[in-house]
Amino acid sequence: MKIARIHFANQNHWAELEGETLHLLEGLQLPRTGQTVALEQATLLAPAEPSKIVCVGRNYLDHIKEMGNLIDDTLPKEPGLFLKAPNTLANPGSSVAHPTWTTELHFEGELALVMGKRAKNIDEKQALEHIFGYTCALDLTARDKQKADLQWTRGKSADDFCPLGPWLETNLDPLTAQVQTKVNGTVRQAASTTLMIFNVPQIVAYISSFMTLEPGDVVLTGTPAGVGKLERGDLVQVTVSGIGTLETHIV
Amino acid sequence: MKIARIHFANQNHWAELEGETLHLLEGLQLPRTGQTVALEQATLLAPAEPSKIVCVGRNYLDHIKEMGNLIDDTLPKEPGLFLKAPNTLANPGSSVAHPTWTTELHFEGELALVMGKRAKNIDEKQALEHIFGYTCALDLTARDKQKADLQWTRGKSADDFCPLGPWLETNLDPLTAQVQTKVNGTVRQAASTTLMIFNVPQIVAYISSFMTLEPGDVVLTGTPAGVGKLERGDLVQVTVSGIGTLETHIV
Repeated sequence: MKIARIHFANQNHWAELEGETLHLLEGLQLPRTGQTVALEQATLLAPAEPSKIVCVGRNYLDHIKEMGNLIDDTLPKEPGLFLKAPNTLANPGSSVAHPTWTTELHFEGELALVMGKRAKNIDEKQALEHIFGYTCALDLTARDKQKADLQWTRGKSADDFCPLGPWLETNLDPLTAQVQTKVNGTVRQAASTTLMIFNVPQIVAYISSFMTLEPGDVVLTGTPAGVGKLERGDLVQVTVSGIGTLETHIV
Repeated sequence: MKIARIHFANQNHWAELEGETLHLLEGLQLPRTGQTVALEQATLLAPAEPSKIVCVGRNYLDHIKEMGNLIDDTLPKEPGLFLKAPNTLANPGSSVAHPTWTTELHFEGELALVMGKRAKNIDEKQALEHIFGYTCALDLTARDKQKADLQWTRGKSADDFCPLGPWLETNLDPLTAQVQTKVNGTVRQAASTTLMIFNVPQIVAYISSFMTLEPGDVVLTGTPAGVGKLERGDLVQVTVSGIGTLETHIV
């Protein structure tokens, strides 16, 4: 089932997408209202209203290597987490301004998930049933500031640094999805989630061991190898198999 | 003016405190409803509903020194920011469980502020008029995990790691406030905000240069020297002159 968040007739709605038709919902995880809207008449919004966005760094071995972060062949023993604040959310199809204060704006395409149930101290076997759906995320990163600053706050949490969408897919196996990032039509990242060091159930269980995840909270599961610099005018397309493609214009 | 957030008669309310009487408000920054409640009959809640909590690390020279972080006498050139997620908020008077996974739970008493107006790209001179009020914060920190993990997420953002309160004071000069932390009645931290490396207007202007601050968002302004370890059974009291005292029990 594909669930979109849309802006239509001056209001925001959750809606189920069937073909090219959006069936409005009374809310996320709530029944249809009976009203429908054509997909082309609605504006797609980032499909989540999270209280927090929790992200995994260094979750694909080849990305750890390309960043020069593989020391003595030691893999992380626990997921390395960071936060993106909700001001980072940007809609599918957005134009995101390249900040003037960074000379190294990088793309990182990722599989994201949105929680459906509150999760605190859950184990790996319970994790998937707490997830509502999956979507594509572009974890925009000011690499120079990420490296220079005390923490990754400016590098990861500037306005519009987390385009998300185009919608949620509730039926997806997060253990075998394909994540692909294109820049101006050229494939720059392509990997299976089978390559994750920590898989989705392990990530969610780990986070929930000290942070309560609320319904609507977003988790970004890490980026594969191939990250690189963006310039004004670039079009970034993040595709996850079975979900769709998130497009972002850098302006 | 002192503005509290309270739980009373199965509902949460904003309320103005006059003496021992709470005048219920229609909302934060909204007029009185006419209904009153005695302070002793209400449960105080953390006085903010933020979309994000932005914190300054290393903002007092003596704290930088005590942590061994003063290298070549170089002070930070820009505020070093980190995030605490909203799951960290805890109410005044709370009992906070000492997590089993840390052996080094530290107290950090701080002046906090709550935004009143949206702030994006504002300058220092405009900063104070965008702030609604001030309160006390206890920035609980799992020092061992802060040092060991990739980022400070577990060290700073575990559940209940940000007790806040007891209420907001709208009339305060944040440039000359006194911040004091007692543990079991003994003063452990005491400093004037005149000692901050970056003062409140500089902090807010800097954050707003890349993150839009929303009304209700919380900013923690850094902790003075004197931080230390907490054990189960400890009572932590953070006092800011002109505001009041935030009490937290470690259990």
